[in-house]
Formats: sequence, C-alpha cells, structure tokens
Amino acid sequence: MNYGLVKDDGIVDLSARYGERWPSLREVIEAGALGTLAEEASALLADYAFADVTYEIPIPAPEKIICVGVNFPDRNEEYKDGQAAPANPSLFIRFPRSFTGHGRPLIRPLESPQLDYEGEIVIVIGKSGRRIAEADALGHIAALSLCNEGTIRDWVRHAKFNVTQGKNFDSTGAIGPWLVPYTDESQLADIKLETRVNGEVRQSDRTSRMIFSFRKIINYISTFTTLVPGDIIVTGTPTGAGARFDPPIWLKPGDVVEVEAEGIGTLRNTIADEVCP
Amino acid sequence: MNYGLVKDDGIVDLSARYGERWPSLREVIEAGALGTLAEEASALLADYAFADVTYEIPIPAPEKIICVGVNFPDRNEEYKDGQAAPANPSLFIRFPRSFTGHGRPLIRPLESPQLDYEGEIVIVIGKSGRRIAEADALGHIAALSLCNEGTIRDWVRHAKFNVTQGKNFDSTGAIGPWLVPYTDESQLADIKLETRVNGEVRQSDRTSRMIFSFRKIINYISTFTTLVPGDIIVTGTPTGAGARFDPPIWLKPGDVVEVEAEGIGTLRNTIADEVCP
Repeated sequence: MNYGLVKDDGIVDLSARYGERWPSLREVIEAGALGTLAEEASALLADYAFADVTYEIPIPAPEKIICVGVNFPDRNEEYKDGQAAPANPSLFIRFPRSFTGHGRPLIRPLESPQLDYEGEIVIVIGKSGRRIAEADALGHIAALSLCNEGTIRDWVRHAKFNVTQGKNFDSTGAIGPWLVPYTDESQLADIKLETRVNGEVRQSDRTSRMIFSFRKIINYISTFTTLVPGDIIVTGTPTGAGARFDPPIWLKPGDVVEVEAEGIGTLRNTIADEVCP
Repeated sequence: MNYGLVKDDGIVDLSARYGERWPSLREVIEAGALGTLAEEASALLADYAFADVTYEIPIPAPEKIICVGVNFPDRNEEYKDGQAAPANPSLFIRFPRSFTGHGRPLIRPLESPQLDYEGEIVIVIGKSGRRIAEADALGHIAALSLCNEGTIRDWVRHAKFNVTQGKNFDSTGAIGPWLVPYTDESQLADIKLETRVNGEVRQSDRTSRMIFSFRKIINYISTFTTLVPGDIIVTGTPTGAGARFDPPIWLKPGDVVEVEAEGIGTLRNTIADEVCP
C-alpha cells in the first residue's frame, strides 16, 4: 500500500521517496510532516494517472476510529422520542475493515438488504492529548477527509444495546477520497456537506448547525481517552438517510453515492452485492 | 516491550530470541507459533524473576477488542426490564489503552468515583475467518486470558446511545495475567470464573451457564466482521458487579481486585487515583 500527493494531473508517489522513514500516512502525521511533505512534493511530476490507482482508506491502521451518533438538529427529532437535544454526544467505534477506499464499491452483505448511507466529515488527529480544552482543540487536527458511514440498518438494533454490529460489516462504509491538511478554522466552521444518491441530493446541511462543534467533540472524547496522531473522528451525519423515507430506500447494486464537502472533495462509491468464495 | 514464557521460577525472554521475526505475540499467533514456541522454550532457564517484570496487556495492538455485554442469566435479570434473555449478544468495543497489565493499578479518573469491576474470560483469535460455523469456531482460538473489564458506571449512560465512553477511560481495565495456549474444549466448557475484591467473592459463575457460548460468540461476531489473528473477545461477566449492590460499592484506591479462572490463572490489580501532571 502506497501513499502519495494528489495533483491536478495525477499522483506523486511519496511512499517511494519517504516510505522507509514513514511506512504510512499515520507515521507522516505522527512526525508532523503532512504539510511540509505536500509542499516539498508539489514541484514533482505525477508518477501515476488517477485511472491507475486503487484507493484505500487514508490511514490504514489508525489506533481508533470514533464516530459521533446524532449531531445535526433534525436527526435528533427523527428519533421521535420527544427528547430535547442530548447533553453529550453518543459515540460508537468502527473497525478500519468496515471501510473501503474512494471509488470502490460498498458491499451489501448476504445478511441484509438494508445498506444505508450517512455522509460525514472526518477529522484526523495530529497531536496527542488528553482533556484537550475546547480553545486548543483545533490545534490537534492534522487533516480533514470525508466518510460514507454506511450502515446495515436492521443490525444496528440486532441486540439489546449498542449499534456495533450494524456499523461494522466489512466494507460497508468508505473514508476518503484523500486527506486535506488542516490549516485554519475556516476550513470547518461553516461548510456545506452534501450526500447524493445517483445524483439526487439526499442529505445537505452546514457544519455551523452541528449540535456538538468540532471543538466540543475533541474536548469530550479526550476526556476519557488519550487521542493520538492518526486517530479518526467521524463527526455525524445530516438528516436524510434512506431509513428516514417512508417506505425506507436502501442502497442497491449499481447505485452511486457521493459525499461532498466544500474544500475537502467528493467521496464517490458504487454499491455491489457480496460475492462469496 | 518484550514477550516471554512464564515458568515456575520466572520468565524466559522470547523477544530476545524471536523478536526480529515476530515483534509481538500478535505476530507469533499470526504465524501459528504460540504452542511450539512455548514448547521449545520450556527447556530454557528463566531470564527474569517475576519481581523484575512489569506486565502489559498480552497483545499490545490487536486489530480489535470486542466485548460481549450481557452473557450470564442473572445479569440479564438485573436490568429489570421484564425482557427475556436476548436473541443476540450485545457488543461493544474497547481500545487497547483502556486496559493495563496484570499487577498494575486500574486508574480511577478525575471525572467519576464510579469505577466498577467485571471479571471475564478472554479468547484470542488465532485463525482468520468470516461467517465461522459454530462447529468450527473453537479451532479459531489461539489462546485464553482474563479481563477485568473495568467500567466507569455513570459514563456508560452519559449519552443517549452506546456505552463507549464508560468503557474506554484510559487504564480502567486490565487483561492478563498472560496467555494460555488453547488446546481443547475442556479448557473452556465448564470452568469456574470468580472475581474477588479485597479477598471477598463478588462474582462467581461457570462458563457452562453463559447465555451465548464461545462457539456462538465467534459465529455471531464473524457474521459481520472478519476475525483475524490477535483479535480479542471479552466474553461477558457474571452477576455481582459493584453497581448491583444497594447502595452501589465502587472501587477505591487501595482495593485489590482478583479475577480467577480454573486453568487460566489470576489477574490481580490494585486501584489508584489518577495523578495529573
């Protein structure tokens, strides 16, 4: 697995140049070298055309992938339990293998037709910390990305507690298309996040409307666990997932899902049925 | 961090001999070498006395640590919601840094006095698999261990959904004392599991009474995620956690918690208050 710099005309292979020192982008981020590497490599010619490349998730083996459950106002109302906005964010964990890369199919498993999309913004931690103050929180971000936090809806409630199962079927979600180095708050404060299925807008909202801000999320999570470089936080999805339609509209083979955010890019995935060996 | 073979008089340093080839026990297990390594090294003299060693969790960076929520009959009744035994196991995920090693203190964090114990049996996966049949499940186990699945009780319900927070405060649980290579079903089928606080028995039950058998747990989890060598499954705790007393009895600095299972060993930890820098 290689990493590289995305340019207009293709990708500069950075693994070939820095791979001994930093085996993956996790180590690049750990070294605080993401921005300088991108700058240094910007003068180089692309080694690969986009068509020659298969994308993986940007950090192949992060220590943690933490997802925020309900983080846009209308989504809380969707639960129709009459409760006001929650005091603390609901959190769950996904394994790296529940995600695939940009341009590759999300896999609808044998067990359920209820594959659903959730477009979200991803922050990647660059600097370790515990009990990070909200005022300092953004300084701990190394990069931004996008997530289709694809979910097997009936397996979210398959057991009495916790959504673990429905959120962790292999290759049911995606992270990418790439990392965008974080520079300042304007990259996050009020950007548009949109999810489209076959070109039709299904989710559209702005980060300024999040119930829990990026600052609050980092502060809250770091209360209990030490965040370390490469950790991935998936920050919550706007209203409009397929489960909310009546009747629900699940993803099916051949569908194309795009998650787009201003200044980050577009994460695009098709859907395919699982093929068993 | 080193790994070794535990003998009667101390520990044989296996890292010094095999560390280049297998950096941690995860790679030893991946290579299917756990049993043979133990055999080969059994003739060697101990390099370290027990007193010279600080224990870490046996697999320092597993791909996954999956915990089973309610898996003994009386525990389900403790929820007093009138529901019968659940159809599928509740699952949640812990990060490696939420655990410490044998003999080291569990840390009571600044945020809560509600540190509670949960004694559990751990299985470590040795062979990859997806949709593993119950009949084949035990053949995917490489080793056994124990867990004090220490929990910050009020943070388990800190948000609307999911127990993530209360289960992931740094160093609030422990795994160990060591791995016991798995050889056959009698090591697991009907063994006694006991948790003691300051010598007083608080939890005591037998694995034959588990709601979801080891076979079923491996089958169920591998339905959605590919299990890989080094994966850790924490299989559920008997009734009698501190939260179930009236009033509840939380762990406090100076307490000693022991989790013991026949044929595996005794995981022993003290409690200490967090000291902030």
